[in-house]
Amino acid sequence: MKVTLNQDVLTDNNSAAAFLREQFQQSKTLVINVMSSPGAGKTTLLEKTIAELSQDYRIGVIEGDLATEIDADRIRAAGAKAVQINTNGGCHLDARMVAKAIPEFDLSEIDILFIENVGNLVCPSGYDLGQQHKIAVLSVPEGNDKIPKYPVMFRRTELVLINKIDLLPYLNFNVELAEEDLKGINPVSKLLKVSATTCEGMDHWFNWIREAYGKL
Amino acid sequence: MKVTLNQDVLTDNNSAAAFLREQFQQSKTLVINVMSSPGAGKTTLLEKTIAELSQDYRIGVIEGDLATEIDADRIRAAGAKAVQINTNGGCHLDARMVAKAIPEFDLSEIDILFIENVGNLVCPSGYDLGQQHKIAVLSVPEGNDKIPKYPVMFRRTELVLINKIDLLPYLNFNVELAEEDLKGINPVSKLLKVSATTCEGMDHWFNWIREAYGKL
Repeated sequence: MKVTLNQDVLTDNNSAAAFLREQFQQSKTLVINVMSSPGAGKTTLLEKTIAELSQDYRIGVIEGDLATEIDADRIRAAGAKAVQINTNGGCHLDARMVAKAIPEFDLSEIDILFIENVGNLVCPSGYDLGQQHKIAVLSVPEGNDKIPKYPVMFRRTELVLINKIDLLPYLNFNVELAEEDLKGINPVSKLLKVSATTCEGMDHWFNWIREAYGKL
Repeated sequence: MKVTLNQDVLTDNNSAAAFLREQFQQSKTLVINVMSSPGAGKTTLLEKTIAELSQDYRIGVIEGDLATEIDADRIRAAGAKAVQINTNGGCHLDARMVAKAIPEFDLSEIDILFIENVGNLVCPSGYDLGQQHKIAVLSVPEGNDKIPKYPVMFRRTELVLINKIDLLPYLNFNVELAEEDLKGINPVSKLLKVSATTCEGMDHWFNWIREAYGKL
Protein backbone atom coordinates (compact mmCIF):
# COMPACT_ATOMS: atom_id res chain seq x y z
CA MET A 1 0.00 0.00 0.00
CA LYS A 2 1.77 3.11 -1.25
CA VAL A 3 0.30 6.24 0.27
CA THR A 4 -0.58 9.09 -2.06
CA LEU A 5 -0.37 12.41 -0.38
CA ASN A 6 -3.19 14.85 -0.88
CA GLN A 7 -1.81 18.34 -0.29
CA ASP A 8 -4.89 19.29 1.81
CA VAL A 9 -3.70 17.10 4.67
CA LEU A 10 -0.65 19.30 5.01
CA THR A 11 -2.55 22.45 6.03
CA ASP A 12 -2.14 21.85 9.75
CA ASN A 13 -0.77 19.32 12.20
CA ASN A 14 -4.14 17.91 13.20
CA SER A 15 -5.26 17.20 9.62
CA ALA A 16 -1.95 15.53 8.88
CA ALA A 17 -2.13 13.48 12.10
CA ALA A 18 -5.68 12.37 11.33
CA PHE A 19 -4.63 11.37 7.81
CA LEU A 20 -1.69 9.41 9.20
CA ARG A 21 -3.84 7.69 11.83
CA GLU A 22 -6.19 6.48 9.12
CA GLN A 23 -3.31 5.14 7.02
CA PHE A 24 -1.79 3.31 9.98
CA GLN A 25 -5.17 1.78 10.84
CA GLN A 26 -5.76 0.60 7.28
CA SER A 27 -2.34 -0.99 7.01
CA LYS A 28 -2.52 -2.42 10.57
CA THR A 29 0.78 -0.78 11.45
CA LEU A 30 1.70 -0.27 15.10
CA VAL A 31 3.23 3.20 15.39
CA ILE A 32 5.25 4.28 18.43
CA ASN A 33 6.50 7.85 18.86
CA VAL A 34 9.74 7.65 20.91
CA MET A 35 10.78 10.83 22.70
CA SER A 36 13.61 11.78 25.07
CA SER A 37 16.43 14.21 25.81
CA PRO A 38 19.41 14.12 23.46
CA GLY A 39 21.58 11.13 24.24
CA ALA A 40 19.11 9.17 26.35
CA GLY A 41 19.67 6.14 24.13
CA LYS A 42 16.72 6.04 21.73
CA THR A 43 18.71 4.81 18.73
CA THR A 44 20.52 2.09 20.69
CA LEU A 45 17.14 1.01 22.06
CA LEU A 46 15.78 0.72 18.52
CA GLU A 47 18.86 -1.14 17.25
CA LYS A 48 18.38 -3.79 19.95
CA THR A 49 14.63 -3.88 19.38
CA ILE A 50 15.11 -4.49 15.65
CA ALA A 51 17.58 -7.30 16.44
CA GLU A 52 15.03 -8.95 18.73
CA LEU A 53 11.76 -8.42 16.90
CA SER A 54 12.60 -8.49 13.22
CA GLN A 55 12.12 -12.25 13.00
CA ASP A 56 8.45 -11.78 13.89
CA TYR A 57 7.66 -8.30 12.62
CA ARG A 58 8.56 -6.13 9.63
CA ILE A 59 9.97 -2.99 11.19
CA GLY A 60 10.40 0.53 9.81
CA VAL A 61 11.86 3.61 11.47
CA ILE A 62 11.48 7.33 10.86
CA GLU A 63 14.42 9.25 12.27
CA GLY A 64 14.01 12.90 13.25
CA ASP A 65 17.12 15.03 13.66
CA LEU A 66 18.12 18.62 13.08
CA ALA A 67 20.94 17.45 10.81
CA THR A 68 22.87 14.37 9.57
CA GLU A 69 21.81 10.82 8.61
CA ILE A 70 23.79 9.30 11.50
CA ASP A 71 20.79 7.66 13.14
CA ALA A 72 19.16 6.40 9.94
CA ASP A 73 22.47 4.81 8.95
CA ARG A 74 22.63 3.04 12.32
CA ILE A 75 19.08 1.73 11.89
CA ARG A 76 19.81 0.50 8.35
CA ALA A 77 22.91 -1.28 9.64
CA ALA A 78 20.67 -2.93 12.24
CA GLY A 79 18.56 -4.30 9.40
CA ALA A 80 15.44 -2.13 9.18
CA LYS A 81 14.23 0.34 6.61
CA ALA A 82 14.84 3.88 7.83
CA VAL A 83 13.81 7.28 6.49
CA GLN A 84 15.65 10.29 7.87
CA ILE A 85 13.84 13.59 8.36
CA ASN A 86 16.10 16.60 8.90
CA THR A 87 14.27 19.45 10.58
CA ASN A 88 17.03 21.96 9.72
CA GLY A 89 17.04 23.42 13.19
CA GLY A 90 13.43 22.58 14.12
CA CYS A 91 13.07 21.21 17.64
CA HIS A 92 10.51 18.46 17.00
CA LEU A 93 8.81 16.42 14.30
CA ASP A 94 5.32 17.38 13.23
CA ALA A 95 2.70 15.28 11.46
CA ARG A 96 3.23 17.08 8.15
CA MET A 97 6.89 16.07 8.07
CA VAL A 98 5.90 12.48 8.88
CA ALA A 99 3.17 12.53 6.21
CA LYS A 100 5.77 13.57 3.63
CA ALA A 101 8.07 10.72 4.69
CA ILE A 102 5.41 7.99 4.75
CA PRO A 103 5.19 7.51 0.93
CA GLU A 104 8.78 6.25 1.09
CA PHE A 105 7.49 3.16 2.89
CA ASP A 106 5.08 0.54 1.66
CA LEU A 107 2.93 0.59 4.80
CA SER A 108 1.29 -2.74 4.01
CA GLU A 109 4.74 -4.24 4.47
CA ILE A 110 5.45 -2.55 7.81
CA ASP A 111 4.06 -4.14 10.99
CA ILE A 112 5.76 -1.80 13.44
CA LEU A 113 6.89 1.75 12.70
CA PHE A 114 9.00 3.56 15.26
CA ILE A 115 9.20 7.33 14.99
CA GLU A 116 12.34 8.47 16.76
CA ASN A 117 11.66 12.10 17.51
CA VAL A 118 14.23 14.91 17.78
CA GLY A 119 16.14 14.67 21.08
CA ASN A 120 14.25 17.19 23.16
CA LEU A 121 12.31 16.71 26.38
CA VAL A 122 9.98 19.64 25.71
CA CYS A 123 8.74 20.40 22.20
CA PRO A 124 8.00 16.94 20.71
CA SER A 125 5.41 16.12 23.39
CA GLY A 126 2.88 18.59 21.99
CA TYR A 127 2.67 17.19 18.44
CA ASP A 128 0.33 14.37 17.50
CA LEU A 129 2.03 12.29 14.77
CA GLY A 130 -0.93 9.94 14.28
CA GLN A 131 0.81 7.30 16.42
CA GLN A 132 -1.08 4.88 18.68
CA HIS A 133 1.53 5.18 21.42
CA LYS A 134 3.76 7.92 22.80
CA ILE A 135 6.62 6.81 25.00
CA ALA A 136 9.48 8.60 26.75
CA VAL A 137 13.00 7.39 27.44
CA LEU A 138 14.71 8.85 30.52
CA SER A 139 18.31 7.86 31.11
CA VAL A 140 19.85 7.38 34.54
CA PRO A 141 22.63 9.99 34.03
CA GLU A 142 20.01 12.71 33.47
CA GLY A 143 19.02 12.48 37.13
CA ASN A 144 15.86 12.09 39.15
CA ASP A 145 14.56 15.63 38.83
CA LYS A 146 13.61 15.37 35.15
CA ILE A 147 10.10 14.01 35.78
CA PRO A 148 8.96 16.95 37.97
CA LYS A 149 10.92 19.48 35.89
CA TYR A 150 9.54 18.40 32.49
CA PRO A 151 5.93 17.52 33.35
CA VAL A 152 4.52 18.28 29.89
CA MET A 153 6.42 15.30 28.49
CA PHE A 154 5.69 12.77 31.22
CA ARG A 155 2.04 13.76 31.46
CA ARG A 156 1.53 12.91 27.78
CA THR A 157 3.33 9.57 27.54
CA GLU A 158 1.96 6.19 28.56
CA LEU A 159 5.27 4.42 29.12
CA VAL A 160 8.58 5.64 30.50
CA LEU A 161 11.68 3.56 29.87
CA ILE A 162 14.33 4.29 32.49
CA ASN A 163 17.38 3.53 30.33
CA LYS A 164 21.08 3.01 31.12
CA ILE A 165 20.36 1.16 34.36
CA ASP A 166 23.83 -0.42 33.91
CA LEU A 167 25.14 2.96 35.15
CA LEU A 168 23.16 2.87 38.42
CA PRO A 169 26.22 1.74 40.45
CA TYR A 170 28.11 4.89 39.42
CA LEU A 171 25.36 7.46 39.75
CA ASN A 172 22.99 8.88 42.28
CA PHE A 173 19.62 7.89 40.79
CA ASN A 174 16.70 6.57 42.81
CA VAL A 175 14.38 4.42 40.68
CA GLU A 176 11.70 4.25 43.38
CA LEU A 177 11.61 8.03 43.60
CA ALA A 178 11.22 8.21 39.80
CA GLU A 179 8.28 5.81 40.08
CA GLU A 180 6.67 7.96 42.78
CA ASP A 181 7.23 11.19 40.85
CA LEU A 182 5.75 9.65 37.71
CA LYS A 183 2.73 8.38 39.64
CA GLY A 184 2.25 11.93 40.95
CA ILE A 185 1.96 13.56 37.56
CA ASN A 186 0.68 10.64 35.46
CA PRO A 187 -0.92 7.85 37.51
CA VAL A 188 -1.64 5.63 34.49
CA SER A 189 1.83 5.70 32.95
CA LYS A 190 3.89 2.53 33.12
CA LEU A 191 7.60 2.51 33.89
CA LEU A 192 10.14 -0.09 32.82
CA LYS A 193 13.83 -0.27 33.75
CA VAL A 194 16.15 -1.21 30.91
CA SER A 195 19.67 -1.02 29.66
CA ALA A 196 19.70 -0.96 25.87
CA THR A 197 23.47 -1.50 26.04
CA THR A 198 23.53 -4.63 28.24
CA CYS A 199 19.95 -5.70 27.34
CA GLU A 200 19.01 -5.98 31.03
CA GLY A 201 15.25 -5.61 31.40
CA MET A 202 14.69 -5.34 27.65
CA ASP A 203 12.38 -8.40 27.61
CA HIS A 204 9.73 -6.35 29.38
CA TRP A 205 9.95 -3.72 26.64
CA PHE A 206 9.78 -6.36 23.90
CA ASN A 207 6.69 -7.87 25.60
CA TRP A 208 5.10 -4.44 25.85
CA ILE A 209 5.51 -4.04 22.07
CA ARG A 210 4.16 -7.54 21.32
CA GLU A 211 1.12 -6.86 23.47
CA ALA A 212 0.54 -3.47 21.85
CA TYR A 213 0.74 -5.13 18.42
CA GLY A 214 -1.68 -7.85 19.55
CA LYS A 215 -4.26 -5.23 20.51
CA LEU A 216 -4.25 -3.50 17.09
CA MET B 1 21.25 49.70 41.15
CA LYS B 2 17.65 48.54 40.97
CA VAL B 3 16.46 48.25 37.39
CA THR B 4 13.15 49.86 36.52
CA LEU B 5 11.47 48.12 33.67
CA ASN B 6 10.02 50.23 30.91
CA GLN B 7 7.26 48.19 29.24
CA ASP B 8 8.50 49.18 25.76
CA VAL B 9 11.53 46.91 26.10
CA LEU B 10 9.21 43.94 26.31
CA THR B 11 7.82 44.29 22.78
CA ASP B 12 10.28 41.84 21.27
CA ASN B 13 13.29 39.75 22.18
CA ASN B 14 15.85 42.01 20.55
CA SER B 15 14.68 45.15 22.36
CA ALA B 16 14.68 43.30 25.67
CA ALA B 17 18.16 41.85 24.97
CA ALA B 18 19.53 45.30 24.06
CA PHE B 19 18.05 46.74 27.25
CA LEU B 20 19.59 43.94 29.32
CA ARG B 21 22.98 44.34 27.63
CA GLU B 22 23.01 48.02 28.58
CA GLN B 23 22.09 47.24 32.20
CA PHE B 24 24.82 44.59 32.46
CA GLN B 25 27.39 46.98 30.99
CA GLN B 26 26.45 49.79 33.40
CA SER B 27 26.65 47.53 36.44
CA LYS B 28 29.82 45.77 35.19
CA THR B 29 28.15 42.40 35.55
CA LEU B 30 29.58 39.41 33.69
CA VAL B 31 26.63 37.44 32.29
CA ILE B 32 26.98 33.87 31.08
CA ASN B 33 24.10 32.01 29.40
CA VAL B 34 24.57 28.30 30.19
CA MET B 35 22.81 25.86 27.84
CA SER B 36 22.65 22.07 27.53
CA SER B 37 20.44 19.02 27.24
CA PRO B 38 18.38 18.11 30.31
CA GLY B 39 20.58 16.46 32.91
CA ALA B 40 23.98 17.45 31.49
CA GLY B 41 24.93 18.85 34.88
CA LYS B 42 24.43 22.61 34.63
CA THR B 43 23.15 23.07 38.19
CA THR B 44 25.92 20.95 39.75
CA LEU B 45 28.44 22.95 37.70
CA LEU B 46 27.02 26.18 39.11
CA GLU B 47 26.94 24.85 42.69
CA LYS B 48 30.66 24.07 42.48
CA THR B 49 31.39 27.35 40.74
CA ILE B 50 29.64 29.31 43.49
CA ALA B 51 31.62 27.39 46.13
CA GLU B 52 34.88 28.28 44.38
CA LEU B 53 34.31 31.85 43.25
CA SER B 54 32.05 33.41 45.85
CA GLN B 55 35.00 34.55 47.97
CA ASP B 56 36.11 36.80 45.11
CA TYR B 57 32.87 37.60 43.29
CA ARG B 58 29.26 38.31 44.19
CA ILE B 59 27.31 35.74 42.20
CA GLY B 60 23.68 35.64 41.10
CA VAL B 61 21.81 32.98 39.15
CA ILE B 62 18.67 33.02 37.04
CA GLU B 63 17.18 29.54 36.75
CA GLY B 64 15.00 28.66 33.77
CA ASP B 65 12.73 25.63 34.01
CA LEU B 66 9.34 24.58 32.76
CA ALA B 67 8.23 23.94 36.34
CA THR B 68 9.42 23.70 39.97
CA GLU B 69 11.93 25.72 42.05
CA ILE B 70 14.23 22.68 42.45
CA ASP B 71 17.23 24.32 40.80
CA ALA B 72 16.83 27.73 42.45
CA ASP B 73 16.64 26.01 45.85
CA ARG B 74 19.89 24.15 45.10
CA ILE B 75 21.61 27.41 44.13
CA ARG B 76 20.37 29.18 47.28
CA ALA B 77 21.67 26.28 49.37
CA ALA B 78 25.02 26.75 47.61
CA GLY B 79 25.06 30.34 48.84
CA ALA B 80 24.07 32.54 45.90
CA LYS B 81 20.99 34.61 45.20
CA ALA B 82 18.75 32.80 42.71
CA VAL B 83 15.63 33.82 40.87
CA GLN B 84 13.57 31.05 39.31
CA ILE B 85 11.75 31.61 36.03
CA ASN B 86 9.10 29.01 35.20
CA THR B 87 8.30 28.96 31.50
CA ASN B 88 5.12 26.89 32.04
CA GLY B 89 5.94 24.57 29.20
CA GLY B 90 8.08 26.96 27.15
CA CYS B 91 11.22 25.35 25.76
CA HIS B 92 13.70 28.20 26.33
CA LEU B 93 14.23 31.50 28.13
CA ASP B 94 13.78 34.69 26.19
CA ALA B 95 15.12 38.16 26.98
CA ARG B 96 11.70 39.42 28.05
CA MET B 97 11.47 36.79 30.78
CA VAL B 98 15.00 37.69 31.93
CA ALA B 99 14.17 41.42 31.86
CA LYS B 100 11.21 40.76 34.17
CA ALA B 101 13.43 38.80 36.58
CA ILE B 102 16.30 41.31 36.68
CA PRO B 103 14.57 43.85 39.00
CA GLU B 104 14.69 41.16 41.69
CA PHE B 105 18.47 41.60 41.80
CA ASP B 106 20.46 44.68 42.73
CA LEU B 107 22.76 44.47 39.70
CA SER B 108 25.36 46.80 41.24
CA GLU B 109 25.88 44.07 43.82
CA ILE B 110 26.24 41.22 41.30
CA ASP B 111 29.65 40.66 39.68
CA ILE B 112 28.76 37.49 37.84
CA LEU B 113 25.29 36.44 36.76
CA PHE B 114 24.75 32.95 35.42
CA ILE B 115 21.60 32.32 33.43
CA GLU B 116 20.87 28.61 33.52
CA ASN B 117 18.65 28.09 30.52
CA VAL B 118 15.93 25.43 30.14
CA GLY B 119 17.46 22.00 29.50
CA ASN B 120 17.18 21.80 25.73
CA LEU B 121 19.88 21.45 23.10
CA VAL B 122 17.84 23.19 20.39
CA CYS B 123 15.60 26.14 21.23
CA PRO B 124 17.65 28.21 23.73
CA SER B 125 20.48 28.75 21.24
CA GLY B 126 18.45 31.15 19.12
CA TYR B 127 17.58 33.68 21.85
CA ASP B 128 19.87 36.55 22.77
CA LEU B 129 19.50 37.20 26.51
CA GLY B 130 21.84 40.20 26.53
CA GLN B 131 24.65 38.02 27.90
CA GLN B 132 28.31 38.55 27.00
CA HIS B 133 28.95 34.81 26.73
CA LYS B 134 27.01 31.78 25.56
CA ILE B 135 28.35 28.40 26.60
CA ALA B 136 27.18 24.82 26.17
CA VAL B 137 27.59 21.86 28.49
CA LEU B 138 27.74 18.43 26.83
CA SER B 139 27.89 15.43 29.14
CA VAL B 140 29.79 12.24 28.36
CA PRO B 141 26.72 9.93 28.64
CA GLU B 142 24.98 11.87 25.84
CA GLY B 143 27.48 10.48 23.36
CA ASN B 144 29.76 11.79 20.65
CA ASP B 145 27.17 12.41 17.98
CA LYS B 146 25.54 15.41 19.67
CA ILE B 147 27.88 18.00 18.15
CA PRO B 148 27.13 17.09 14.50
CA LYS B 149 23.46 16.37 15.26
CA TYR B 150 22.75 19.67 17.06
CA PRO B 151 24.88 22.12 15.05
CA VAL B 152 22.70 25.17 15.76
CA MET B 153 23.73 25.04 19.42
CA PHE B 154 27.45 24.41 18.98
CA ARG B 155 27.78 26.95 16.19
CA ARG B 156 26.51 29.70 18.51
CA THR B 157 28.50 28.98 21.66
CA GLU B 158 32.08 30.03 22.34
CA LEU B 159 32.90 27.40 24.95
CA VAL B 160 31.85 23.77 25.32
CA LEU B 161 32.31 22.09 28.67
CA ILE B 162 32.50 18.32 28.25
CA ASN B 163 31.08 17.36 31.65
CA LYS B 164 30.95 14.08 33.62
CA ILE B 165 34.42 13.00 32.48
CA ASP B 166 34.48 10.84 35.63
CA LEU B 167 32.19 8.50 33.66
CA LEU B 168 34.64 8.10 30.73
CA PRO B 169 35.85 4.68 31.99
CA TYR B 170 32.32 3.29 31.75
CA LEU B 171 31.22 4.79 28.47
CA ASN B 172 32.15 4.89 24.85
CA PHE B 173 32.98 8.58 24.38
CA ASN B 174 35.93 9.87 22.37
CA VAL B 175 37.01 13.32 23.56
CA GLU B 176 39.39 13.84 20.62
CA LEU B 177 36.59 13.13 18.17
CA ALA B 178 34.41 15.68 19.99
CA GLU B 179 37.22 18.23 19.61
CA GLU B 180 37.48 17.49 15.88
CA ASP B 181 33.71 17.68 15.36
CA LEU B 182 33.54 20.98 17.21
CA LYS B 183 36.42 22.39 15.17
CA GLY B 184 34.53 21.38 12.03
CA ILE B 185 31.40 23.37 12.82
CA ASN B 186 32.84 26.13 15.02
CA PRO B 187 36.60 26.60 14.65
CA VAL B 188 36.83 29.37 17.28
CA SER B 189 34.98 27.57 20.07
CA LYS B 190 37.00 26.39 23.04
CA LEU B 191 36.47 23.02 24.72
CA LEU B 192 37.23 22.13 28.33
CA LYS B 193 36.93 18.73 29.99
CA VAL B 194 35.42 18.78 33.48
CA SER B 195 33.65 16.74 36.06
CA ALA B 196 31.45 18.99 38.17
CA THR B 197 30.97 16.03 40.52
CA THR B 198 34.64 15.20 41.22
CA CYS B 199 35.91 18.72 40.34
CA GLU B 200 38.47 17.27 37.89
CA GLY B 201 39.37 19.94 35.33
CA MET B 202 37.21 22.58 36.98
CA ASP B 203 40.17 24.93 37.54
CA HIS B 204 40.29 25.59 33.80
CA TRP B 205 36.64 26.62 33.89
CA PHE B 206 37.18 28.85 36.93
CA ASN B 207 40.13 30.49 35.14
CA TRP B 208 38.03 31.01 32.04
CA ILE B 209 35.46 32.88 34.16
CA ARG B 210 38.14 34.96 35.94
CA GLU B 211 39.62 35.96 32.57
CA ALA B 212 36.21 36.82 31.15
CA TYR B 213 35.51 38.99 34.18
CA GLY B 214 38.90 40.66 33.82
CA LYS B 215 38.08 41.64 30.24
CA LEU B 216 34.81 43.39 31.16
